[in-house]
Amino acid sequence: MDYVTIKYITKKPKLKNPILIEGLPGIGNVGKLAVEHLIDSIKAVKFAQLYSKDFPPQVFINPDGTIELVKNEFYYWKAKKKNQRDLILLTGDYQGLSSQGQYELVENILNIAEEFGSKEIYTLGGYGLGHEVENPKVLCATTDKSLVKPMKKFGAVFKKNEPGGGIVGASGLLLGLGQLRGLKGTCFMGETPVYLVDPKSAKAVLKILIKITNVEVDLSELENKAKEIEHIAHQLKEMENVSKDKSEELKYIG
Amino acid sequence: MDYVTIKYITKKPKLKNPILIEGLPGIGNVGKLAVEHLIDSIKAVKFAQLYSKDFPPQVFINPDGTIELVKNEFYYWKAKKKNQRDLILLTGDYQGLSSQGQYELVENILNIAEEFGSKEIYTLGGYGLGHEVENPKVLCATTDKSLVKPMKKFGAVFKKNEPGGGIVGASGLLLGLGQLRGLKGTCFMGETPVYLVDPKSAKAVLKILIKITNVEVDLSELENKAKEIEHIAHQLKEMENVSKDKSEELKYIG
Amino acid sequence: MDYVTIKYITKKPKLKNPILIEGLPGIGNVGKLAVEHLIDSIKAVKFAQLYSKDFPPQVFINPDGTIELVKNEFYYWKAKKKNQRDLILLTGDYQGLSSQGQYELVENILNIAEEFGSKEIYTLGGYGLGHEVENPKVLCATTDKSLVKPMKKFGAVFKKNEPGGGIVGASGLLLGLGQLRGLKGTCFMGETPVYLVDPKSAKAVLKILIKITNVEVDLSELENKAKEIEHIAHQLKEMENVSKDKSEELKYIG
Amino acid sequence: MDYVTIKYITKKPKLKNPILIEGLPGIGNVGKLAVEHLIDSIKAVKFAQLYSKDFPPQVFINPDGTIELVKNEFYYWKAKKKNQRDLILLTGDYQGLSSQGQYELVENILNIAEEFGSKEIYTLGGYGLGHEVENPKVLCATTDKSLVKPMKKFGAVFKKNEPGGGIVGASGLLLGLGQLRGLKGTCFMGETPVYLVDPKSAKAVLKILIKITNVEVDLSELENKAKEIEHIAHQLKEMENVSKDKSEELKYIG
Repeated sequence: MDYVTIKYITKKPKLKNPILIEGLPGIGNVGKLAVEHLIDSIKAVKFAQLYSKDFPPQVFINPDGTIELVKNEFYYWKAKKKNQRDLILLTGDYQGLSSQGQYELVENILNIAEEFGSKEIYTLGGYGLGHEVENPKVLCATTDKSLVKPMKKFGAVFKKNEPGGGIVGASGLLLGLGQLRGLKGTCFMGETPVYLVDPKSAKAVLKILIKITNVEVDLSELENKAKEIEHIAHQLKEMENVSKDKSEELKYIG
Repeated sequence: MDYVTIKYITKKPKLKNPILIEGLPGIGNVGKLAVEHLIDSIKAVKFAQLYSKDFPPQVFINPDGTIELVKNEFYYWKAKKKNQRDLILLTGDYQGLSSQGQYELVENILNIAEEFGSKEIYTLGGYGLGHEVENPKVLCATTDKSLVKPMKKFGAVFKKNEPGGGIVGASGLLLGLGQLRGLKGTCFMGETPVYLVDPKSAKAVLKILIKITNVEVDLSELENKAKEIEHIAHQLKEMENVSKDKSEELKYIG
Repeated sequence: MDYVTIKYITKKPKLKNPILIEGLPGIGNVGKLAVEHLIDSIKAVKFAQLYSKDFPPQVFINPDGTIELVKNEFYYWKAKKKNQRDLILLTGDYQGLSSQGQYELVENILNIAEEFGSKEIYTLGGYGLGHEVENPKVLCATTDKSLVKPMKKFGAVFKKNEPGGGIVGASGLLLGLGQLRGLKGTCFMGETPVYLVDPKSAKAVLKILIKITNVEVDLSELENKAKEIEHIAHQLKEMENVSKDKSEELKYIG
Repeated sequence: MDYVTIKYITKKPKLKNPILIEGLPGIGNVGKLAVEHLIDSIKAVKFAQLYSKDFPPQVFINPDGTIELVKNEFYYWKAKKKNQRDLILLTGDYQGLSSQGQYELVENILNIAEEFGSKEIYTLGGYGLGHEVENPKVLCATTDKSLVKPMKKFGAVFKKNEPGGGIVGASGLLLGLGQLRGLKGTCFMGETPVYLVDPKSAKAVLKILIKITNVEVDLSELENKAKEIEHIAHQLKEMENVSKDKSEELKYIG
């Protein structure tokens, strides 16, 4: 096995000018949730797995008792209508652990993208607010100035020099290293409180991506998941309040 | 010396379809205790040592004043009866320190296994409970669905998606990377409180392995060690209670 | 992309015996502030960008919504007068994260320097005092004993064996690895309290560099920045005092 | 520059069956103190410098204002009498920072040793006690059982399986990796309280090494340094006692 290894699990698909969409684990798991939902909805087909010596030395356990080495996964989907484009979708268990590992990972992802003729990349992630948000906005950054206006039309928001710390991880690096190869890329970052996985933010990101790709996606499952998470968040809050009250009671007693 | 170096200390043994059994240091040292006991019991022969630049830069001191570089060790054992199989046994001082080091280590172990014609791997480890357990169960995960049923027959337990965090380290990686090579592998994880080395858990794991390999192993020494550890655990607990009592006495005085 | 990659963004400039001046991020950002001010003042031309897999996996966001991979930047400036020399100026977002990354980075910078015929290097940085300083002195260290006397004439200060911990990072390594190649190098370290970026210290460093290079640089902007920073430092101090007073008041009440 | 680079600063010396003696920084700096004192006493000649990308990216400042990249240094000394042997002496600023860096460093040192025909290695270090010691003993470990008896005669002490944690760092690794090459090596570890650099322990180690090598070394300077350190240790202790007394006084007042 090389430092990064790609293993095809189907014949290499023939794709026409495909769009690469990335959603790896990150802030609020927004990108991963969004791409996984997209993959399920459009019934994309897994065609390759990526392994890296910079991923943790770990296997996960499937429900049937079998193991799987931690990995990233490539899916494809072929356009059904004239206003659609072929898609390559990327998700996975981990990003690289080290700086060098991240660069190697992204270089290999870009190699795959270019091998299948992709010149356009969308990376999905979260933008941590540190507080709750009713209607998460979707921040945007892009490799090319000419993409700013169209992305605004799709509902994405550009805030001057935001995020202030730039974009860290695969979502940023795919654009940065892609830019050096002449690829066009855009990153969508859904606002998220950070505390928990955030299907609501993932939905906000997907809504924009749907407008761009013209794929048909039922978002109701993400909405259900969002309600579940809200319920959990509510419960956590109550537990916190109860323990606060108790400790105050104790103060009165003590 | 390469990043990982194998050094043969005997002529390469001729083995027939051997089973690889791994027990490196880990949770409760369950795997290492089990494989070391197995090696001693069946009088397996050391044939190779493995060094890695990702092991600590360290030598250990033997009782006679000589040093030895930290390493992993390969032993072999030849089947004596028809219902037995040749064995390769692996134990050692350390696993790799870094992710990359773990991947390199395991790739080299698998190379050895394949060189001697091994297609079947058993990895042994502990499953940390965080509390004491009277009769440790042995959890199981495997590379192939077809292995689940026979392993259950041997007494191993499958719990849906357990361990939740997957299997980290050489025990998991040997299965994960082995699976990519088409090797069949099974991991046995003995339940253990984690606090101390756990010969009782090692015994539970070995009991299953004995049924699979049909080797004759006297487990009484492991039982004695288990009693010693229980004695030490008991003493530690008493010391804790005494210091608790004392601090409570002090509260009454103070 | 290699571990370190240089990307020319103009035709390679023809330079005559140029001086290399480095100012990467560091203590008080003194070096970076100084070189950036110099680049702006003399209208130096960017000709190459350097990327490294040991930089963080990160892009920064420009005011127009486009991204840029983190990098170092090379500028050149051609002498206008007889008493001037061609210059190569280096600044950037980061130094290497790891030891090896730092060595690789500096080796690549020296390769560029030598490719353009440079035999003389000035590296700029800060010397952390841990307290405020009215008139920051500029400490100096050099690759060659013959450079000590001239540097003193330019106003730099040599203190026996200072800094006691040596010079850590690119400013030190450019001299150390340059020395092994037979290049002459000098490091100027402006005294700085460390707490904040320090344009006053950068100005002190630049004043000496101006005498050496005979370039014309208006330092008024650095002076304005220094006043801003002093204002901020003053405000921070007041806030601290207020909170101290408050907590003392509370003590009287409580 | 390679990962590890050797730079000769004289013509390669012609040595006859030389002994390699290592004293790099470590516990109580015992090894480094001992070898540096030996180098000064016998007027050994520096012939090579070693640089590593796994050393910190750092230069030190000489008293004359010049810098030097951090490094290890090789010295040689030619036997003057029949009962003496040629010597290679190794000291330096640092050991490697990472495991891999340590292995690479030691492999390169052994390459040098073998290039000059050395088959015998002595490594010097400290053995941390955590408390003061009037007459530090010198613990010993060795690559060959046949060396135990002669080393005992020279005054070294073997304690069963001590040090329990083995020997970590270059002093251990030179023996461990040397052993794999068929070289004979012995490590002397002077007992030391650990708190401060320890010339007394260095002297104890050197006394044994002098018996082995039959070189003439005046140990009085080490004795003077030991007295200085004892004086400092005494002062530190008094300061500690004073502050303890004060805090007790305060308790009576408060």
